[in-house]
Amino acid sequence: MSERFGERVRSVLSARGPLCVGIDPHAALLAAWGLTDDARGVREFGLRTVEAASGRVGIVKPQVSFFERFGSQGIAALEDVLAAARAAGLIVIADAKRGDIGSTMDDYARAWLTPGSPLEADALTVSPFLGVGALDGTFAVAEQHGKGVFVLAATSNPEAEGLQRSTDPTGATVSASVIAGVSARNARRSAAGEWGSFGFVIGATVDWSTAGIEPFAPAAPILAPGFGAQGATPADLRPRFGRMSDAVIASESRSLLSVGPVELAEAISARTAEYLEVAGV
Amino acid sequence: MSERFGERVRSVLSARGPLCVGIDPHAALLAAWGLTDDARGVREFGLRTVEAASGRVGIVKPQVSFFERFGSQGIAALEDVLAAARAAGLIVIADAKRGDIGSTMDDYARAWLTPGSPLEADALTVSPFLGVGALDGTFAVAEQHGKGVFVLAATSNPEAEGLQRSTDPTGATVSASVIAGVSARNARRSAAGEWGSFGFVIGATVDWSTAGIEPFAPAAPILAPGFGAQGATPADLRPRFGRMSDAVIASESRSLLSVGPVELAEAISARTAEYLEVAGV
Repeated sequence: MSERFGERVRSVLSARGPLCVGIDPHAALLAAWGLTDDARGVREFGLRTVEAASGRVGIVKPQVSFFERFGSQGIAALEDVLAAARAAGLIVIADAKRGDIGSTMDDYARAWLTPGSPLEADALTVSPFLGVGALDGTFAVAEQHGKGVFVLAATSNPEAEGLQRSTDPTGATVSASVIAGVSARNARRSAAGEWGSFGFVIGATVDWSTAGIEPFAPAAPILAPGFGAQGATPADLRPRFGRMSDAVIASESRSLLSVGPVELAEAISARTAEYLEVAGV
Repeated sequence: MSERFGERVRSVLSARGPLCVGIDPHAALLAAWGLTDDARGVREFGLRTVEAASGRVGIVKPQVSFFERFGSQGIAALEDVLAAARAAGLIVIADAKRGDIGSTMDDYARAWLTPGSPLEADALTVSPFLGVGALDGTFAVAEQHGKGVFVLAATSNPEAEGLQRSTDPTGATVSASVIAGVSARNARRSAAGEWGSFGFVIGATVDWSTAGIEPFAPAAPILAPGFGAQGATPADLRPRFGRMSDAVIASESRSLLSVGPVELAEAISARTAEYLEVAGV
């Protein structure tokens, strides 16, 4: 197998900075771009975004729900977008937040992480509601194929606080327990000085101390939505993530996509420059 | 709009008993049925299961991951299965366990719960990891169209215990808080003497006291996987669910599907009779 996912992300973040372009063709953006609100529209939206992102960032993140809305035709459009992004050398994180148990979960992993699958991506976002242990089959599929997994750990939406800050008998929050469970599964890589391939989704505006989470090891990528339209800026990255900052994938969608297809490439370049300046690369 | 989902389920459970046939075309079952391990195979598997279930039970539950494994072609197969099941008058629960926030989650709801959508089902399973409040848009879509939602609340897989039994500052477990949050959203219906349309997924082998959950009101359907191959029997239903028993949808998959396509209809009829005997219908 080629280079492991964690190490690929490490290289890309180092070379290109943290910006990840979200591919979020929701209805309002389709209208703003002059595209039809159908599978053809989301395909065109996705392909144009890939084209604009190509060579300007290292990572893109298609949001699956906006394609799934159009059923099998929307999913076929997504397949084209995934293929174009991977052909352009972009790391593609399928933001699907799948979560189930046993063979059911394993088949989600196979759908998104098997080489040659029509929905092949480089990594998949998943939900730990059924337990981190229920994702072991997913981790195994990812490991086998050099793919990555991002486990929802601490999200920034206020509705999530009650659940994610609940505690186990040791006082660990759900968010902290998820991070600990996944980190344990990265430990083997850590011993080799590598980044783990099983990363986390941690919102850019999450207050770590209130969420009960701390900087963690071994290192693994942190997918951080919440930059851009949701309020976090490039200058916030280091103050918020501290010594984890180098592992952060800063995902922006609306803040970039809302400029429209013509100016998108320029907006991505400008934003990348802002992140690189802050990072001191 | 036609009859609300909660009331439809109430009628069907009363008339036909609790058995729900899972449509789970995983690789091993496809092979056992002599079907190909591709989109054509899962389509055939699904259509044959619908045919066998039709007139013998009231509810079917296709497991989305087994279709998604084949990308857009698998999803197209699922569309055919969903349409056939609804045309046969079955209540169709799409077991997709989707979970996200804001407009992203709303588009999952639109995909599965909008009349005329290619993936139209009668209800959708969802995950509350991002908070019950993050599902409010989904509840609104369901309400608008007479559809249902089943929120994961307490699952029986051992890996889930740490998370789902974590507690908030009042001592309520995650499972109990999810049930309370969703029940509050059913309250309006309850006042009218109706069942709520926002139900729960509670595993058939969950120990309610250990999980920190109690019988709840207002009434809403409980989708209970874990009957059949996972160990719970029709005779377990009333002892396990107590005064919630009448709200239980007992989902079985492998225990029925493994008999093969020829004997499936007979197996479903026999199992339905067992449940009806226990229920004293």
